[in-house]
Amino acid sequence: MKNIEIAVIPGDGIGKEVVPFGVKALELAAEIHGGLSFKMQEFPWSCEYYVEHGRMMPENGIDILKNFEAIFLGAVGLPKTVPDHVSLWGLLIAIRREMKQYINLRPVKQMRGVRSPLADPKGFDILVVRENAEGEYSPIGGRMIAGNDEIVVQNAVFTRSGTERAIRFAFEAAGKRDRKFVTSATKSNGIIHSMPFWDEVFGQVGREFPEIQQTSTHIDALSAFFVTKPQTLDVVVASNLFGDILTDLGAGIMGSIGIAPSANINPDRKYPSMFEPVHGSAPDIYGKGIANPVGQMWTAKMMLDFFGFEDVGQLLLDSIEDTMEAGIITPDLGGKASTTEVGEAILTKFKE
Amino acid sequence: MKNIEIAVIPGDGIGKEVVPFGVKALELAAEIHGGLSFKMQEFPWSCEYYVEHGRMMPENGIDILKNFEAIFLGAVGLPKTVPDHVSLWGLLIAIRREMKQYINLRPVKQMRGVRSPLADPKGFDILVVRENAEGEYSPIGGRMIAGNDEIVVQNAVFTRSGTERAIRFAFEAAGKRDRKFVTSATKSNGIIHSMPFWDEVFGQVGREFPEIQQTSTHIDALSAFFVTKPQTLDVVVASNLFGDILTDLGAGIMGSIGIAPSANINPDRKYPSMFEPVHGSAPDIYGKGIANPVGQMWTAKMMLDFFGFEDVGQLLLDSIEDTMEAGIITPDLGGKASTTEVGEAILTKFKE
Ligand SMILES: CC(C)[C@H](C(=O)O)[C@@H](O)C(=O)O
Ligand SMILES: CC(C)[C@H](C(=O)O)[C@@H](O)C(=O)O
Repeated sequence: MKNIEIAVIPGDGIGKEVVPFGVKALELAAEIHGGLSFKMQEFPWSCEYYVEHGRMMPENGIDILKNFEAIFLGAVGLPKTVPDHVSLWGLLIAIRREMKQYINLRPVKQMRGVRSPLADPKGFDILVVRENAEGEYSPIGGRMIAGNDEIVVQNAVFTRSGTERAIRFAFEAAGKRDRKFVTSATKSNGIIHSMPFWDEVFGQVGREFPEIQQTSTHIDALSAFFVTKPQTLDVVVASNLFGDILTDLGAGIMGSIGIAPSANINPDRKYPSMFEPVHGSAPDIYGKGIANPVGQMWTAKMMLDFFGFEDVGQLLLDSIEDTMEAGIITPDLGGKASTTEVGEAILTKFKE
Repeated sequence: MKNIEIAVIPGDGIGKEVVPFGVKALELAAEIHGGLSFKMQEFPWSCEYYVEHGRMMPENGIDILKNFEAIFLGAVGLPKTVPDHVSLWGLLIAIRREMKQYINLRPVKQMRGVRSPLADPKGFDILVVRENAEGEYSPIGGRMIAGNDEIVVQNAVFTRSGTERAIRFAFEAAGKRDRKFVTSATKSNGIIHSMPFWDEVFGQVGREFPEIQQTSTHIDALSAFFVTKPQTLDVVVASNLFGDILTDLGAGIMGSIGIAPSANINPDRKYPSMFEPVHGSAPDIYGKGIANPVGQMWTAKMMLDFFGFEDVGQLLLDSIEDTMEAGIITPDLGGKASTTEVGEAILTKFKE
């Protein structure tokens, strides 16, 4: 019997509505696989927790999480209660960094049963490898009054080792895919310190992978390609901010931010990895029972893959697509089903 | 007789192919309007010029340009000859900054006769107001070997005055439009010095415009909205980088980067403003005679608007749309016409 310990953090807003279906999917996956169990422990860390305790998680929160093999997260943020940069840097980004989850993996894939807003999506199937530990998201910088003005400086910080490992991960991921093609998101024409450096590292690491086709595209043009020719892309490697933008855009072309999954990976497996959907806490629809559980359940599949249970993970994804193809979809996808109806329908198909 | 002096810089690649049609459109506009002439002088500043002179423009290039009322630019950059950051910072970005063109105006509009890649574009009509003089495009930063690593720092620099004037411009622009709605592109959850500051300024300036509807949206979500619900947006105000990304994405949903125009404005009119299409020099198609002249010609219309000749500008835009609706379009739009065929067809309609 293999037993995997998971910390579950539903977080805020619709995170609390969709996480239960992700948890049920994991439990069912263990059952279907056999000889496997997920031992899950839930933590109430969230903006509500902040209101009570003045922090997003206890001071020893990171240490507590280190005892687990993975973290299953819903969503973080309630901007009317806690400013976003406080809640996110106090929980989501803190975990990503402390746990050295330096890769954020985000598939962008045309799904059965979902209408893409693109007229002719041509079966796009992209894997975005997002650098997840440094770059544009940096606490270095500040404000001052200077001369007749107020000046704010925000530092983006890129290290060679941090850039190399993200880019190398992307090449290795491409090596396992059919098309074997890596596109690097850059902006070396406008951003003249970090991005020419990024290009240089991409070129150097790329030479280790002569069998992989490789190209660099400016982030502005690349964003347009997500709309005009997404089917030409395979693996896309991007800095923290560029990856953030491309993957929401990716969720957009998929048909809804409510279905997109993501995995914050510590490839060295020294620390737990964290699995969370791309969507946020969506306070505007929280409590209405209409949040889409697909993103969270597809995220469960990414966790199954991570632990080597690709077979049962694929079954779960098939069940998700079957359910959507049967028209059992939430309002964000143009349907009328509730969170529970969609979640239960997926679980029922998964059981079959 | 009103005489307006224009510096024309075709620049690199397809810039040289499309600028002549923009120039002809301006000449014809003056004729149609009557009592008006554009006196145009051409400058060969470009990457080729760099190869010969070791600089993108002469040392006194900026002083020369100050004698003109506007600059009409094609495209800059030939990355195989001159690194992009050298060519762009040596010409395009240098002019934007030295001439205090702190606003970059970019319409994102569904056009007659152009098939949008969106299945249901619903007549979107967005005006992006891009901060054009500071922000993420900054020469401050550098590289060093530190500890066991190499570290690159890129500073984004925002000033209160620079942020305020861009945001105020956006509110004023919204006041002249039907919908009167400004969306601010932010990322204050991830980027914690500059973007919370940007939000603060947006809130403060916004209070001067109680009649304008106003909201902030994170750049990741906003990028998705350009695909999932562009018709809900009106004016979008964005930092230099975010505006760059959104407007290429905007060109993407319009149907081709080849049709999108832009205006680098010095609203104080102390320095010449510069008009240039959104597309680049496209060395891959240069010389084939298939570059789309629409972006450059629509850019000429923006120049006409800037000088107060909105009527004739509208006629030019109508001629562009009529031509595209008649199926006279270049390959980027799915057609078979050449640069010359499209350009001449537009000019012929414009003459009528
Ligand atoms: C060429 C490049 C530096 C430029 C920019 O990023 O500003 C271009 O993309 C644009 O949008 O005008
Ligand atoms: C909430 C926010 C800080 C976060 C990010 O930008 O990383 C989110 O957008 C994401 O993509 O996971």
